[in-house]
Amino acid sequence: MRIFNGTALAARLNAETQARVAELGRAPRCRVLLDGSNAGMAAYGARLADSAVAAGIDLETESYPQAAEVLPRLATLAADATLDAVATLYPLPAGVDPLQAALTLGAAKDIDGLHPENAGLLALGAPARAPATARACRLIAEDIAGPLTGREVVLVGASRIVGRPLAQLLLDAGATVTLTHADTRDLAAHTRGAEIVITAAGRAGLIGPDHLADGTVVLDVSINRGAHGVIGDVDLAALADRDVTVTHVPDGVGPVTTGCLLANIAATACEAGS
Amino acid sequence: MRIFNGTALAARLNAETQARVAELGRAPRCRVLLDGSNAGMAAYGARLADSAVAAGIDLETESYPQAAEVLPRLATLAADATLDAVATLYPLPAGVDPLQAALTLGAAKDIDGLHPENAGLLALGAPARAPATARACRLIAEDIAGPLTGREVVLVGASRIVGRPLAQLLLDAGATVTLTHADTRDLAAHTRGAEIVITAAGRAGLIGPDHLADGTVVLDVSINRGAHGVIGDVDLAALADRDVTVTHVPDGVGPVTTGCLLANIAATACEAGS
Repeated sequence: MRIFNGTALAARLNAETQARVAELGRAPRCRVLLDGSNAGMAAYGARLADSAVAAGIDLETESYPQAAEVLPRLATLAADATLDAVATLYPLPAGVDPLQAALTLGAAKDIDGLHPENAGLLALGAPARAPATARACRLIAEDIAGPLTGREVVLVGASRIVGRPLAQLLLDAGATVTLTHADTRDLAAHTRGAEIVITAAGRAGLIGPDHLADGTVVLDVSINRGAHGVIGDVDLAALADRDVTVTHVPDGVGPVTTGCLLANIAATACEAGS
Repeated sequence: MRIFNGTALAARLNAETQARVAELGRAPRCRVLLDGSNAGMAAYGARLADSAVAAGIDLETESYPQAAEVLPRLATLAADATLDAVATLYPLPAGVDPLQAALTLGAAKDIDGLHPENAGLLALGAPARAPATARACRLIAEDIAGPLTGREVVLVGASRIVGRPLAQLLLDAGATVTLTHADTRDLAAHTRGAEIVITAAGRAGLIGPDHLADGTVVLDVSINRGAHGVIGDVDLAALADRDVTVTHVPDGVGPVTTGCLLANIAATACEAGS
Protein backbone atom coordinates (compact mmCIF):
# COMPACT_ATOMS: atom_id res chain seq x y z
CA MET A 1 0.00 0.00 0.00
CA ARG A 2 1.19 3.48 -0.87
CA ILE A 3 0.01 6.50 1.17
CA PHE A 4 -0.53 9.83 -0.60
CA ASN A 5 0.21 12.96 1.37
CA GLY A 6 -1.37 16.17 0.05
CA THR A 7 1.11 18.64 1.50
CA ALA A 8 3.17 19.15 -1.67
CA LEU A 9 0.13 19.67 -3.91
CA ALA A 10 -1.35 22.05 -1.34
CA ALA A 11 1.91 24.01 -1.24
CA ARG A 12 1.75 24.51 -5.02
CA LEU A 13 -1.86 25.74 -4.76
CA ASN A 14 -0.99 28.05 -1.87
CA ALA A 15 1.95 29.53 -3.78
CA GLU A 16 -0.44 30.37 -6.65
CA THR A 17 -2.87 31.96 -4.21
CA GLN A 18 -0.08 33.95 -2.57
CA ALA A 19 0.96 35.28 -6.00
CA ARG A 20 -2.66 36.27 -6.82
CA VAL A 21 -2.97 38.07 -3.49
CA ALA A 22 0.32 39.90 -4.05
CA GLU A 23 -0.95 41.04 -7.43
CA LEU A 24 -4.23 42.21 -5.87
CA GLY A 25 -2.27 44.41 -3.48
CA ARG A 26 -4.46 43.88 -0.42
CA ALA A 27 -5.34 41.02 1.92
CA PRO A 28 -8.65 39.33 0.98
CA ARG A 29 -10.91 39.18 4.04
CA CYS A 30 -12.92 36.09 4.94
CA ARG A 31 -15.06 35.12 7.91
CA VAL A 32 -15.50 31.41 8.69
CA LEU A 33 -18.50 30.33 10.76
CA LEU A 34 -18.10 27.06 12.60
CA ASP A 35 -19.30 25.06 15.56
CA GLY A 36 -16.49 25.40 18.09
CA SER A 37 -17.82 22.45 20.10
CA ASN A 38 -17.28 20.13 17.08
CA ALA A 39 -13.67 18.98 17.37
CA GLY A 40 -13.36 18.26 13.65
CA MET A 41 -14.69 21.64 12.57
CA ALA A 42 -12.59 23.46 15.13
CA ALA A 43 -9.43 21.68 13.97
CA TYR A 44 -10.23 22.39 10.31
CA GLY A 45 -10.88 26.05 11.13
CA ALA A 46 -7.55 26.32 12.95
CA ARG A 47 -5.65 24.74 10.02
CA LEU A 48 -7.47 27.07 7.63
CA ALA A 49 -6.51 30.13 9.68
CA ASP A 50 -2.84 29.04 9.78
CA SER A 51 -2.71 28.45 6.02
CA ALA A 52 -4.49 31.75 5.37
CA VAL A 53 -1.76 33.71 7.14
CA ALA A 54 0.88 32.14 4.88
CA ALA A 55 -1.16 32.99 1.78
CA GLY A 56 -1.67 36.61 2.82
CA ILE A 57 -5.39 36.20 3.55
CA ASP A 58 -7.07 37.84 6.53
CA LEU A 59 -9.26 35.00 7.80
CA GLU A 60 -11.16 35.05 11.09
CA THR A 61 -13.27 32.29 12.54
CA GLU A 62 -16.35 32.82 14.67
CA SER A 63 -18.75 30.41 16.35
CA TYR A 64 -22.26 29.99 15.01
CA PRO A 65 -24.83 31.84 17.09
CA GLN A 66 -27.98 30.02 18.25
CA ALA A 67 -29.97 28.59 15.34
CA ALA A 68 -32.52 31.42 15.30
CA GLU A 69 -29.71 33.97 14.95
CA VAL A 70 -27.84 32.32 12.08
CA LEU A 71 -29.76 33.89 9.18
CA PRO A 72 -29.69 37.41 10.70
CA ARG A 73 -25.96 37.00 11.30
CA LEU A 74 -25.40 35.90 7.68
CA ALA A 75 -27.43 38.90 6.48
CA THR A 76 -25.14 41.19 8.49
CA LEU A 77 -22.01 39.54 7.08
CA ALA A 78 -23.47 39.71 3.55
CA ALA A 79 -23.93 43.47 3.96
CA ASP A 80 -20.44 44.03 5.41
CA ALA A 81 -18.53 45.70 2.57
CA THR A 82 -15.18 44.99 4.24
CA LEU A 83 -15.62 41.21 3.81
CA ASP A 84 -14.87 39.44 0.51
CA ALA A 85 -16.08 35.97 1.47
CA VAL A 86 -17.93 34.03 4.14
CA ALA A 87 -17.62 30.28 4.70
CA THR A 88 -20.32 28.37 6.59
CA LEU A 89 -18.79 25.07 7.65
CA TYR A 90 -21.06 22.01 7.60
CA PRO A 91 -23.05 20.74 9.34
CA LEU A 92 -24.96 23.94 10.03
CA PRO A 93 -26.61 24.27 13.46
CA ALA A 94 -29.70 22.02 13.67
CA GLY A 95 -32.77 23.70 12.24
CA VAL A 96 -30.92 25.98 9.82
CA ASP A 97 -31.87 25.26 6.20
CA PRO A 98 -28.73 25.11 4.01
CA LEU A 99 -30.48 26.69 1.01
CA GLN A 100 -31.89 29.56 3.08
CA ALA A 101 -28.45 30.13 4.58
CA ALA A 102 -26.85 30.25 1.12
CA LEU A 103 -29.53 32.57 -0.28
CA THR A 104 -29.16 34.90 2.72
CA LEU A 105 -25.40 35.09 2.25
CA GLY A 106 -25.73 35.62 -1.51
CA ALA A 107 -23.71 34.25 -4.43
CA ALA A 108 -20.95 36.87 -4.36
CA LYS A 109 -19.46 35.88 -0.97
CA ASP A 110 -20.17 32.13 -1.26
CA ILE A 111 -16.85 30.33 -1.70
CA ASP A 112 -18.05 26.73 -1.45
CA GLY A 113 -20.63 26.40 -4.24
CA LEU A 114 -23.54 26.43 -1.79
CA HIS A 115 -25.54 29.20 -3.50
CA PRO A 116 -27.85 28.03 -6.35
CA GLU A 117 -26.18 30.38 -8.81
CA ASN A 118 -22.73 28.93 -8.10
CA ALA A 119 -24.02 25.33 -8.02
CA GLY A 120 -25.79 26.01 -11.32
CA LEU A 121 -22.70 27.42 -13.01
CA LEU A 122 -20.88 24.23 -11.98
CA ALA A 123 -23.68 22.07 -13.40
CA LEU A 124 -23.67 24.06 -16.64
CA GLY A 125 -19.92 23.72 -17.14
CA ALA A 126 -18.84 27.22 -16.12
CA PRO A 127 -17.74 26.73 -12.52
CA ALA A 128 -16.69 30.02 -10.96
CA ARG A 129 -15.89 28.59 -7.55
CA ALA A 130 -16.22 24.83 -7.34
CA PRO A 131 -16.76 23.45 -3.82
CA ALA A 132 -13.31 23.13 -2.28
CA THR A 133 -13.48 19.44 -1.36
CA ALA A 134 -14.72 18.43 -4.81
CA ARG A 135 -12.05 20.46 -6.59
CA ALA A 136 -9.39 19.04 -4.25
CA CYS A 137 -10.44 15.49 -5.13
CA ARG A 138 -10.22 16.13 -8.85
CA LEU A 139 -6.76 17.67 -8.47
CA ILE A 140 -5.50 14.80 -6.31
CA ALA A 141 -6.91 12.16 -8.67
CA GLU A 142 -5.11 13.82 -11.59
CA ASP A 143 -1.95 14.22 -9.52
CA ILE A 144 -1.83 10.50 -8.71
CA ALA A 145 -3.42 8.90 -11.75
CA GLY A 146 -2.88 11.38 -14.60
CA PRO A 147 -5.56 12.53 -17.08
CA LEU A 148 -9.01 11.19 -16.17
CA THR A 149 -10.44 10.75 -19.68
CA GLY A 150 -12.13 7.35 -19.83
CA ARG A 151 -11.10 6.42 -16.29
CA GLU A 152 -13.55 4.43 -14.19
CA VAL A 153 -14.34 6.41 -11.04
CA VAL A 154 -16.72 5.30 -8.28
CA LEU A 155 -17.90 7.79 -5.66
CA VAL A 156 -19.00 6.47 -2.28
CA GLY A 157 -21.44 9.10 -1.06
CA ALA A 158 -23.70 11.31 -3.22
CA SER A 159 -24.05 14.37 -0.98
CA ARG A 160 -24.76 17.82 -2.37
CA ILE A 161 -21.54 19.21 -0.89
CA VAL A 162 -19.06 16.52 -2.00
CA GLY A 163 -20.27 13.64 -4.20
CA ARG A 164 -22.58 15.43 -6.60
CA PRO A 165 -20.42 18.47 -7.41
CA LEU A 166 -17.42 16.15 -7.65
CA ALA A 167 -19.27 14.05 -10.22
CA GLN A 168 -19.68 17.18 -12.36
CA LEU A 169 -15.95 17.96 -12.20
CA LEU A 170 -15.00 14.35 -13.01
CA LEU A 171 -17.38 14.26 -15.98
CA ASP A 172 -15.89 17.55 -17.16
CA ALA A 173 -12.52 15.74 -17.06
CA GLY A 174 -13.88 12.85 -19.20
CA ALA A 175 -14.22 10.18 -16.50
CA THR A 176 -16.98 7.57 -16.35
CA VAL A 177 -18.62 8.19 -12.98
CA THR A 178 -20.75 6.02 -10.71
CA LEU A 179 -22.44 7.56 -7.67
CA THR A 180 -23.10 5.09 -4.87
CA HIS A 181 -24.60 5.79 -1.45
CA ALA A 182 -26.31 4.23 1.55
CA ASP A 183 -29.09 2.75 -0.63
CA THR A 184 -26.66 1.06 -3.03
CA ARG A 185 -27.19 -2.70 -2.92
CA ASP A 186 -23.73 -4.04 -3.72
CA LEU A 187 -21.11 -1.39 -3.06
CA ALA A 188 -18.17 -3.79 -3.43
CA ALA A 189 -19.28 -4.85 -6.93
CA HIS A 190 -19.00 -1.22 -8.00
CA THR A 191 -15.77 -0.31 -6.24
CA ARG A 192 -14.03 -3.52 -7.45
CA GLY A 193 -14.63 -2.31 -11.02
CA ALA A 194 -13.13 1.12 -10.37
CA GLU A 195 -9.67 2.48 -11.09
CA ILE A 196 -10.31 5.36 -8.69
CA VAL A 197 -12.57 5.21 -5.62
CA ILE A 198 -13.43 8.41 -3.77
CA THR A 199 -15.11 7.79 -0.45
CA ALA A 200 -16.87 10.43 1.64
CA ALA A 201 -19.29 8.16 3.46
CA GLY A 202 -18.08 8.91 6.98
CA ARG A 203 -18.01 5.22 8.01
CA ALA A 204 -14.78 3.91 9.44
CA GLY A 205 -13.77 0.53 7.98
CA LEU A 206 -16.28 0.73 5.12
CA ILE A 207 -13.70 0.07 2.37
CA GLY A 208 -11.81 -3.19 2.90
CA PRO A 209 -9.87 -5.74 0.82
CA ASP A 210 -12.99 -7.11 -0.89
CA HIS A 211 -13.81 -3.66 -2.22
CA LEU A 212 -10.69 -2.99 -4.27
CA ALA A 213 -8.96 -4.43 -7.32
CA ASP A 214 -5.18 -4.33 -7.54
CA GLY A 215 -3.84 -0.95 -8.61
CA THR A 216 -6.81 1.05 -7.36
CA VAL A 217 -6.33 4.63 -6.19
CA VAL A 218 -8.49 5.53 -3.18
CA LEU A 219 -9.20 9.09 -2.08
CA ASP A 220 -10.47 9.06 1.50
CA VAL A 221 -12.38 12.29 2.21
CA SER A 222 -13.87 11.16 5.52
CA ILE A 223 -12.64 12.19 8.92
CA ASN A 224 -14.05 9.81 11.52
CA ARG A 225 -13.11 10.40 15.13
CA GLY A 226 -12.66 7.39 17.37
CA ALA A 227 -10.72 6.08 20.32
CA HIS A 228 -7.50 6.03 18.32
CA GLY A 229 -7.71 9.51 16.76
CA VAL A 230 -8.98 10.40 13.31
CA ILE A 231 -9.37 7.75 10.62
CA GLY A 232 -11.04 7.68 7.22
CA ASP A 233 -13.37 5.13 5.61
CA VAL A 234 -10.55 2.84 4.45
CA ASP A 235 -9.52 -0.17 6.56
CA LEU A 236 -5.77 0.51 6.28
CA ALA A 237 -4.64 -2.48 8.36
CA ALA A 238 -6.54 -4.96 6.21
CA LEU A 239 -5.10 -3.41 3.03
CA ALA A 240 -1.50 -3.05 4.23
CA ASP A 241 -0.13 -5.73 1.88
CA ARG A 242 -2.22 -4.80 -1.15
CA ASP A 243 -1.23 -2.95 -4.33
CA VAL A 244 -3.37 0.16 -3.71
CA THR A 245 -2.75 3.87 -3.17
CA VAL A 246 -4.72 5.54 -0.37
CA THR A 247 -4.73 9.19 0.66
CA HIS A 248 -3.62 9.94 4.22
CA VAL A 249 -6.24 11.00 6.79
CA PRO A 250 -6.22 13.85 7.60
CA ASP A 251 -3.16 14.96 5.57
CA GLY A 252 -4.27 13.72 2.15
CA VAL A 253 -7.44 15.44 0.95
CA GLY A 254 -7.42 17.86 3.91
CA PRO A 255 -4.58 20.26 3.02
CA VAL A 256 -5.57 20.31 -0.65
CA THR A 257 -9.16 21.19 0.31
CA THR A 258 -7.83 24.02 2.46
CA GLY A 259 -5.73 25.16 -0.49
CA CYS A 260 -8.77 25.16 -2.79
CA LEU A 261 -10.83 27.15 -0.26
CA LEU A 262 -8.08 29.75 0.04
CA ALA A 263 -7.88 29.92 -3.77
CA ASN A 264 -11.64 30.57 -3.86
CA ILE A 265 -11.29 33.37 -1.29
CA ALA A 266 -8.57 35.00 -3.39
CA ALA A 267 -10.69 34.62 -6.54
CA THR A 268 -13.64 36.30 -4.82
CA ALA A 269 -11.48 39.21 -3.73
CA CYS A 270 -10.05 39.58 -7.24
CA GLU A 271 -13.60 39.74 -8.65
CA ALA A 272 -14.49 42.38 -6.06
CA GLY A 273 -11.39 44.39 -7.03
CA SER A 274 -8.77 46.22 -5.02
CA MET B 1 -39.60 -7.40 -26.03
CA ARG B 2 -42.24 -5.08 -24.64
CA ILE B 3 -42.68 -1.56 -26.03
CA PHE B 4 -43.68 1.25 -23.67
CA ASN B 5 -45.89 3.99 -25.09
CA GLY B 6 -45.91 7.26 -23.15
CA THR B 7 -49.32 8.50 -24.25
CA ALA B 8 -51.26 7.43 -21.14
CA LEU B 9 -48.71 8.88 -18.70
CA ALA B 10 -48.61 12.10 -20.75
CA ALA B 11 -52.42 12.31 -20.65
CA ARG B 12 -52.34 12.13 -16.85
CA LEU B 13 -49.74 14.92 -16.71
CA ASN B 14 -51.70 17.05 -19.18
CA ALA B 15 -54.91 16.62 -17.17
CA GLU B 16 -53.08 17.94 -14.10
CA THR B 17 -51.75 20.89 -16.09
CA GLN B 18 -55.23 21.60 -17.48
CA ALA B 19 -56.61 21.67 -13.92
CA ARG B 20 -53.84 24.04 -12.78
CA VAL B 21 -54.53 26.34 -15.71
CA ALA B 22 -58.28 26.31 -15.00
CA GLU B 23 -57.55 27.28 -11.41
CA LEU B 24 -55.26 30.09 -12.58
CA GLY B 25 -58.13 31.53 -14.63
CA ARG B 26 -56.06 32.63 -17.63
CA ALA B 27 -54.04 30.99 -20.40
CA PRO B 28 -50.29 30.88 -19.63
CA ARG B 29 -48.36 32.35 -22.56
CA CYS B 30 -45.19 30.78 -23.89
CA ARG B 31 -42.95 31.47 -26.88
CA VAL B 32 -40.88 28.61 -28.29
CA LEU B 33 -37.81 29.45 -30.36
CA LEU B 34 -36.71 26.75 -32.77
CA ASP B 35 -34.85 26.11 -35.99
CA GLY B 36 -37.60 25.54 -38.55
CA SER B 37 -35.12 23.96 -40.98
CA ASN B 38 -34.40 21.17 -38.46
CA ALA B 39 -37.08 18.54 -39.10
CA GLY B 40 -36.85 17.11 -35.59
CA MET B 41 -37.19 20.44 -33.86
CA ALA B 42 -40.02 21.52 -36.17
CA ALA B 43 -41.93 18.29 -35.49
CA TYR B 44 -41.40 18.61 -31.74
CA GLY B 45 -42.56 22.24 -31.87
CA ALA B 46 -45.71 21.26 -33.75
CA ARG B 47 -46.54 18.48 -31.26
CA LEU B 48 -45.91 20.91 -28.41
CA ALA B 49 -48.27 23.49 -29.91
CA ASP B 50 -51.01 20.86 -30.37
CA SER B 51 -50.69 19.61 -26.79
CA ALA B 52 -50.62 23.18 -25.48
CA VAL B 53 -54.03 23.94 -26.99
CA ALA B 54 -55.53 20.94 -25.18
CA ALA B 55 -53.99 22.06 -21.88
CA GLY B 56 -55.27 25.62 -22.25
CA ILE B 57 -51.82 27.13 -22.85
CA ASP B 58 -51.23 29.86 -25.41
CA LEU B 59 -48.02 28.63 -27.07
CA GLU B 60 -46.50 30.17 -30.20
CA THR B 61 -43.40 29.00 -32.01
CA GLU B 62 -41.03 31.28 -33.86
CA SER B 63 -37.85 30.64 -35.82
CA TYR B 64 -34.50 31.66 -34.42
CA PRO B 65 -33.18 34.84 -36.02
CA GLN B 66 -29.59 34.92 -37.33
CA ALA B 67 -27.05 34.10 -34.63
CA ALA B 68 -26.11 37.73 -33.96
CA GLU B 69 -29.78 38.56 -33.32
CA VAL B 70 -30.54 35.74 -30.86
CA LEU B 71 -29.44 37.49 -27.65
CA PRO B 72 -31.21 40.78 -28.51
CA ARG B 73 -34.36 38.80 -29.35
CA LEU B 74 -34.17 36.93 -26.03
CA ALA B 75 -33.73 40.25 -24.21
CA THR B 76 -36.90 41.53 -25.88
CA LEU B 77 -38.85 38.40 -24.94
CA ALA B 78 -37.50 38.59 -21.37
CA ALA B 79 -38.87 42.13 -21.08
CA ASP B 80 -42.26 41.24 -22.58
CA ALA B 81 -44.61 41.28 -19.58
CA THR B 82 -47.32 39.40 -21.50
CA LEU B 83 -45.13 36.27 -21.73
CA ASP B 84 -44.85 33.78 -18.84
CA ALA B 85 -42.21 31.53 -20.35
CA VAL B 86 -39.76 31.19 -23.22
CA ALA B 87 -38.31 27.89 -24.45
CA THR B 88 -35.13 27.83 -26.52
CA LEU B 89 -34.97 24.46 -28.23
CA TYR B 90 -31.54 22.87 -28.61
CA PRO B 91 -29.27 22.98 -30.46
CA LEU B 92 -29.10 26.77 -30.47
CA PRO B 93 -27.93 28.45 -33.71
CA ALA B 94 -24.17 27.98 -34.18
CA GLY B 95 -22.17 30.62 -32.33
CA VAL B 96 -24.77 31.29 -29.63
CA ASP B 97 -23.44 30.45 -26.16
CA PRO B 98 -26.07 28.47 -24.18
CA LEU B 99 -25.12 30.10 -20.87
CA GLN B 100 -25.30 33.63 -22.32
CA ALA B 101 -28.68 32.79 -23.85
CA ALA B 102 -30.00 31.53 -20.51
CA LEU B 103 -28.64 34.52 -18.60
CA THR B 104 -30.18 36.92 -21.13
CA LEU B 105 -33.57 35.25 -20.82
CA GLY B 106 -33.37 35.19 -17.02
CA ALA B 107 -34.39 32.54 -14.49
CA ALA B 108 -38.05 33.52 -14.23
CA LYS B 109 -39.06 32.60 -17.80
CA ASP B 110 -36.67 29.61 -18.14
CA ILE B 111 -38.76 26.42 -18.19
CA ASP B 112 -36.02 23.93 -19.02
CA GLY B 113 -33.48 24.32 -16.23
CA LEU B 114 -31.02 26.16 -18.48
CA HIS B 115 -30.46 29.17 -16.20
CA PRO B 116 -27.77 28.73 -13.52
CA GLU B 117 -30.23 29.55 -10.75
CA ASN B 118 -32.63 26.82 -11.87
CA ALA B 119 -29.82 24.32 -12.53
CA GLY B 120 -28.42 25.16 -9.09
CA LEU B 121 -31.74 24.62 -7.31
CA LEU B 122 -31.91 21.19 -8.97
CA ALA B 123 -28.36 20.37 -7.85
CA LEU B 124 -29.15 21.51 -4.30
CA GLY B 125 -32.28 19.38 -4.03
CA ALA B 126 -34.92 22.09 -4.45
CA PRO B 127 -35.81 21.79 -8.14
CA ALA B 128 -38.34 24.45 -9.14
CA ARG B 129 -38.53 23.41 -12.80
CA ALA B 130 -36.50 20.36 -13.65
CA PRO B 131 -35.54 20.04 -17.32
CA ALA B 132 -38.51 18.44 -19.07
CA THR B 133 -36.69 15.49 -20.62
CA ALA B 134 -34.96 14.58 -17.35
CA ARG B 135 -38.19 14.78 -15.37
CA ALA B 136 -39.99 12.72 -18.04
CA CYS B 137 -37.35 9.97 -17.76
CA ARG B 138 -37.70 9.76 -13.99
CA LEU B 139 -41.49 9.56 -14.24
CA ILE B 140 -41.35 6.86 -16.94
CA ALA B 141 -38.78 4.81 -15.02
CA GLU B 142 -41.01 4.88 -11.95
CA ASP B 143 -44.09 4.13 -14.05
CA ILE B 144 -42.51 1.00 -15.52
CA ALA B 145 -40.20 -0.18 -12.74
CA GLY B 146 -41.71 1.21 -9.52
CA PRO B 147 -39.78 3.00 -6.77
CA LEU B 148 -36.16 3.60 -7.74
CA THR B 149 -34.52 3.26 -4.29
CA GLY B 150 -31.44 1.08 -4.66
CA ARG B 151 -32.06 0.41 -8.36
CA GLU B 152 -29.06 0.22 -10.67
CA VAL B 153 -29.42 2.87 -13.38
CA VAL B 154 -26.93 3.51 -16.18
CA LEU B 155 -27.17 6.68 -18.26
CA VAL B 156 -25.72 6.67 -21.77
CA GLY B 157 -24.83 10.31 -22.40
CA ALA B 158 -23.80 12.87 -19.78
CA SER B 159 -24.99 16.10 -21.42
CA ARG B 160 -25.92 19.17 -19.39
CA ILE B 161 -29.46 19.14 -20.75
CA VAL B 162 -30.37 15.44 -20.25
CA GLY B 163 -27.86 13.12 -18.55
CA ARG B 164 -26.54 15.31 -15.77
CA PRO B 165 -29.83 16.81 -14.53
CA LEU B 166 -31.39 13.35 -14.84
CA ALA B 167 -28.66 11.93 -12.60
CA GLN B 168 -29.67 14.46 -9.93
CA LEU B 169 -33.33 13.41 -10.11
CA LEU B 170 -32.47 9.70 -9.99
CA LEU B 171 -30.17 10.20 -6.98
CA ASP B 172 -32.99 12.14 -5.30
CA ALA B 173 -35.11 9.02 -5.88
CA GLY B 174 -32.48 6.78 -4.24
CA ALA B 175 -31.04 5.10 -7.34
CA THR B 176 -27.40 4.15 -7.84
CA VAL B 177 -26.39 6.06 -10.97
CA THR B 178 -23.58 5.57 -13.49
CA LEU B 179 -22.95 8.24 -16.12
CA THR B 180 -21.34 6.91 -19.29
CA HIS B 181 -20.48 8.82 -22.47
CA ALA B 182 -18.39 8.81 -25.63
CA ASP B 183 -15.15 8.42 -23.62
CA THR B 184 -16.42 5.41 -21.66
CA ARG B 185 -14.18 2.42 -22.40
CA ASP B 186 -16.58 -0.51 -22.01
CA LEU B 187 -20.16 0.69 -22.31
CA ALA B 188 -21.64 -2.82 -22.51
CA ALA B 189 -20.00 -3.85 -19.22
CA HIS B 190 -21.89 -1.02 -17.53
CA THR B 191 -25.26 -1.43 -19.23
CA ARG B 192 -25.23 -5.23 -18.69
CA GLY B 193 -25.11 -4.56 -14.94
CA ALA B 194 -28.06 -2.15 -15.03
CA GLU B 195 -31.73 -2.72 -14.25
CA ILE B 196 -32.60 0.50 -16.06
CA VAL B 197 -30.66 1.98 -19.00
CA ILE B 198 -31.49 5.48 -20.21
CA THR B 199 -29.84 6.33 -23.52
CA ALA B 200 -29.61 9.81 -25.02
CA ALA B 201 -26.49 9.29 -27.10
CA GLY B 202 -28.07 10.01 -30.49
CA ARG B 203 -26.44 6.96 -32.16
CA ALA B 204 -28.76 4.57 -33.95
CA GLY B 205 -28.02 0.92 -33.15
CA LEU B 206 -25.77 1.73 -30.19
CA ILE B 207 -27.62 -0.53 -27.72
CA GLY B 208 -27.81 -4.14 -28.91
CA PRO B 209 -28.25 -7.63 -27.41
CA ASP B 210 -24.78 -7.68 -25.83
CA HIS B 211 -25.59 -4.54 -23.87
CA LEU B 212 -28.57 -5.77 -21.87
CA ALA B 213 -29.29 -8.37 -19.21
CA ASP B 214 -32.69 -10.08 -19.14
CA GLY B 215 -35.38 -7.96 -17.56
CA THR B 216 -33.76 -4.61 -18.29
CA VAL B 217 -35.89 -1.54 -18.84
CA VAL B 218 -34.52 0.78 -21.53
CA LEU B 219 -35.60 4.39 -21.96
CA ASP B 220 -34.62 5.61 -25.41
CA VAL B 221 -34.48 9.41 -25.45
CA SER B 222 -32.77 9.74 -28.83
CA ILE B 223 -34.48 10.67 -32.07
CA ASN B 224 -32.23 9.71 -34.97
CA ARG B 225 -33.49 10.45 -38.47
CA GLY B 226 -32.58 8.02 -41.21
CA ALA B 227 -33.80 6.50 -44.46
CA HIS B 228 -36.55 4.61 -42.61
CA GLY B 229 -37.92 7.44 -40.48
CA VAL B 230 -37.05 8.19 -36.86
CA ILE B 231 -35.37 5.61 -34.66
CA GLY B 232 -33.72 5.70 -31.26
CA ASP B 233 -30.41 4.29 -30.02
CA VAL B 234 -31.79 0.78 -29.44
CA ASP B 235 -31.39 -1.93 -32.08
CA LEU B 236 -35.01 -3.14 -31.85
CA ALA B 237 -34.71 -5.89 -34.48
CA ALA B 238 -31.78 -7.53 -32.71
CA LEU B 239 -33.64 -7.43 -29.39
CA ALA B 240 -37.04 -8.59 -30.67
CA ASP B 241 -36.91 -11.96 -28.89
CA ARG B 242 -35.35 -10.71 -25.66
CA ASP B 243 -36.95 -10.16 -22.25
CA VAL B 244 -36.53 -6.37 -22.21
CA THR B 245 -38.83 -3.33 -22.11
CA VAL B 246 -37.99 -0.47 -24.47
CA THR B 247 -39.72 2.89 -24.85
CA HIS B 248 -41.21 3.66 -28.25
CA VAL B 249 -39.49 6.26 -30.46
CA PRO B 250 -40.89 8.87 -30.76
CA ASP B 251 -44.01 8.03 -28.71
CA GLY B 252 -42.31 6.86 -25.51
CA VAL B 253 -40.25 9.61 -23.88
CA GLY B 254 -41.53 12.24 -26.36
CA PRO B 255 -45.11 12.84 -25.19
CA VAL B 256 -44.10 12.69 -21.53
CA THR B 257 -41.38 15.29 -22.15
CA THR B 258 -43.96 17.50 -23.83
CA GLY B 259 -46.23 16.99 -20.82
CA CYS B 260 -43.44 17.99 -18.43
CA LEU B 261 -42.65 21.12 -20.46
CA LEU B 262 -46.31 22.16 -20.42
CA ALA B 263 -46.40 21.54 -16.65
CA ASN B 264 -43.37 23.83 -16.27
CA ILE B 265 -45.10 26.55 -18.31
CA ALA B 266 -48.17 26.32 -16.09
CA ALA B 267 -45.99 26.40 -12.95
CA THR B 268 -44.23 29.53 -14.20
CA ALA B 269 -47.54 31.25 -14.87
CA CYS B 270 -48.83 30.27 -11.42
CA GLU B 271 -45.72 31.81 -9.84
CA ALA B 272 -46.26 34.99 -11.87
CA GLY B 273 -49.90 35.08 -10.73
CA SER B 274 -53.15 35.79 -12.49
